[in-house]
Amino acid sequence: MALLKPGDRVALYMEGAFEDGTGKMGMGVLRYAPYEVAAVVDARHAGGDLKALTGIDRPAPIVASVEAAAQLGATVFVIGIAPPGGRIPDAYRPAIDEAVTLGLCVVNGLHEPLAPQFQRRPGQWIWDVRVEPPGLSVGAGSARRMSARRVLMIGTDMACGKMTAGLEIHAEAKRRGMASAFVATGQIGIVLTGGGVPLDAVRLDYASGAIEREVLGHGNAELIVVEGQGALLHPASTANLALLRGSCPTHLVLCHRAGQQSLLRVPDIRIPGLRAYARLYEELGEAVGTFPRPRTVAVALNTAHLGPGEARDAVQRMEDETGWPTADPVRDGAGRLLDAALQA
Amino acid sequence: MALLKPGDRVALYMEGAFEDGTGKMGMGVLRYAPYEVAAVVDARHAGGDLKALTGIDRPAPIVASVEAAAQLGATVFVIGIAPPGGRIPDAYRPAIDEAVTLGLCVVNGLHEPLAPQFQRRPGQWIWDVRVEPPGLSVGAGSARRMSARRVLMIGTDMACGKMTAGLEIHAEAKRRGMASAFVATGQIGIVLTGGGVPLDAVRLDYASGAIEREVLGHGNAELIVVEGQGALLHPASTANLALLRGSCPTHLVLCHRAGQQSLLRVPDIRIPGLRAYARLYEELGEAVGTFPRPRTVAVALNTAHLGPGEARDAVQRMEDETGWPTADPVRDGAGRLLDAALQA
Repeated sequence: MALLKPGDRVALYMEGAFEDGTGKMGMGVLRYAPYEVAAVVDARHAGGDLKALTGIDRPAPIVASVEAAAQLGATVFVIGIAPPGGRIPDAYRPAIDEAVTLGLCVVNGLHEPLAPQFQRRPGQWIWDVRVEPPGLSVGAGSARRMSARRVLMIGTDMACGKMTAGLEIHAEAKRRGMASAFVATGQIGIVLTGGGVPLDAVRLDYASGAIEREVLGHGNAELIVVEGQGALLHPASTANLALLRGSCPTHLVLCHRAGQQSLLRVPDIRIPGLRAYARLYEELGEAVGTFPRPRTVAVALNTAHLGPGEARDAVQRMEDETGWPTADPVRDGAGRLLDAALQA
Repeated sequence: MALLKPGDRVALYMEGAFEDGTGKMGMGVLRYAPYEVAAVVDARHAGGDLKALTGIDRPAPIVASVEAAAQLGATVFVIGIAPPGGRIPDAYRPAIDEAVTLGLCVVNGLHEPLAPQFQRRPGQWIWDVRVEPPGLSVGAGSARRMSARRVLMIGTDMACGKMTAGLEIHAEAKRRGMASAFVATGQIGIVLTGGGVPLDAVRLDYASGAIEREVLGHGNAELIVVEGQGALLHPASTANLALLRGSCPTHLVLCHRAGQQSLLRVPDIRIPGLRAYARLYEELGEAVGTFPRPRTVAVALNTAHLGPGEARDAVQRMEDETGWPTADPVRDGAGRLLDAALQA
């Protein structure tokens, strides 16, 4: 794993993602990746201003083709888009073919493996991130005996900012000199950090065991931040049970997009009140007294779609409504969220 | 799928299973399979009395080897044992090799596929039951709009009788002339009924969608009995979230082994009181008002380890303690359980 290294130069494929919100991988790379982005590939915005589009201060041009990115020195083609379900749409094929033909390496975070589909030159690799790792076994609930604080990021929907908030909390803890570990559980976090397990590609039987193995692997940490996945009431999401059992969290940080009332992809399902929703996570985690009851300590509020004044108001309103310390970790930093996790 | 047909003659591999309780597949075949069992293979009990060992009235001799079973006319070798985790132990290898060499077909319910490992003669097949089916997608919660009663079997532990109780309720409903469907979700139910999905072999991302597809496939049924898997507080089990979201159950039947206090394979984890435990399933199913709240209607009590008098007492005690109609469906039939599901 961790085939991408500092020094690599990325062609980030984002065709259409700025319109339809499927560019989570790409946004993560733009915000956090420790390697250079040579160019973003999106014909609809070629020549446009990346910062204006994303709010992220990464100096990368937007170009119309993989070839143009290669001419700018790109060596690794990263698919920055992930449609729901994870299969590779036909519309991506020409760009992928072009990348391989031009000799670029490929990072693929979708369910469908690309490596078996292409002949490669010497030194050219294709990293299919979303593949079940070998050697998994079933969970035993052993994480409940660890002394580290285990903070699980939970959310009211998919794609509401759980990974970002978790990475910010982890980074803040490192800045303070803490022995902090981040357990990536999705393809994006894995591509950014070089470790973790792609939970949604793991067979159900091994899901909690896969998380348990990752968490137990950080035996010397005092803080373990576990990237959340999906949402407990989302009909497409099963991950939270594996996350709760595998990590036996002591604390929860609830992630929510400010103002969101219902699930983005299942709009007739409403998001319930946050305190009741968090209680459901806590009760399921505790399992009628079997495991330590995790305590919800803070709200990470995603205000990316709001102006600065609106964002401040939304954070304040959330604090007033829930009683939990609230912050948008991207705007405000994660100090307040980390404090809440350490004080509780 | 459904490669086993009435007319096939089974060599049922059960070596050691009568001692260590890993013979769920075999017990299911002995109790319910609509095909002939030519012989049970278990050297430790060769020549012994199958009914005395199992309580099941299936006229099959116990023999010491696959060869002896083949001499009795066996044509299909069924691995009746499943160690936790699902890998194929080395101890099974000689028997599997012998079966393939003798020309028998093979039914394998373990995670590790056998088909790629063997050359086969014309007409000789190897059915790896526990493989993710093609064409899955993510769940959308659509089962909540079906008019059928959807009864999900839940349990306090793995291997406590959920499949058996579900099959008995389904059989009783058919006897009464109802349009009843059974959704098998594990390898044993699939081998017995020829349909369903091996949930624990499905990648997490598609788990609830896989259940949803099976349930929606029975659009004309008035009753859909969904085989349960694992247990909500078991650290090795993630299935119940996928089962709840995929089937959106209207009713729950709680399965429990009489007198059991803690998890068989994680004995330091105690089973909580059944009413509190069932409430956790109900609350998770309802998801703070998002889905119809499933109603627990009855207890299926597994009393296989008790004598008749003790079993009667245990059933009565469970009714008194929980207030739910209780029956051991194997001893008493499932009429009382079905009545409870239809009246609630």
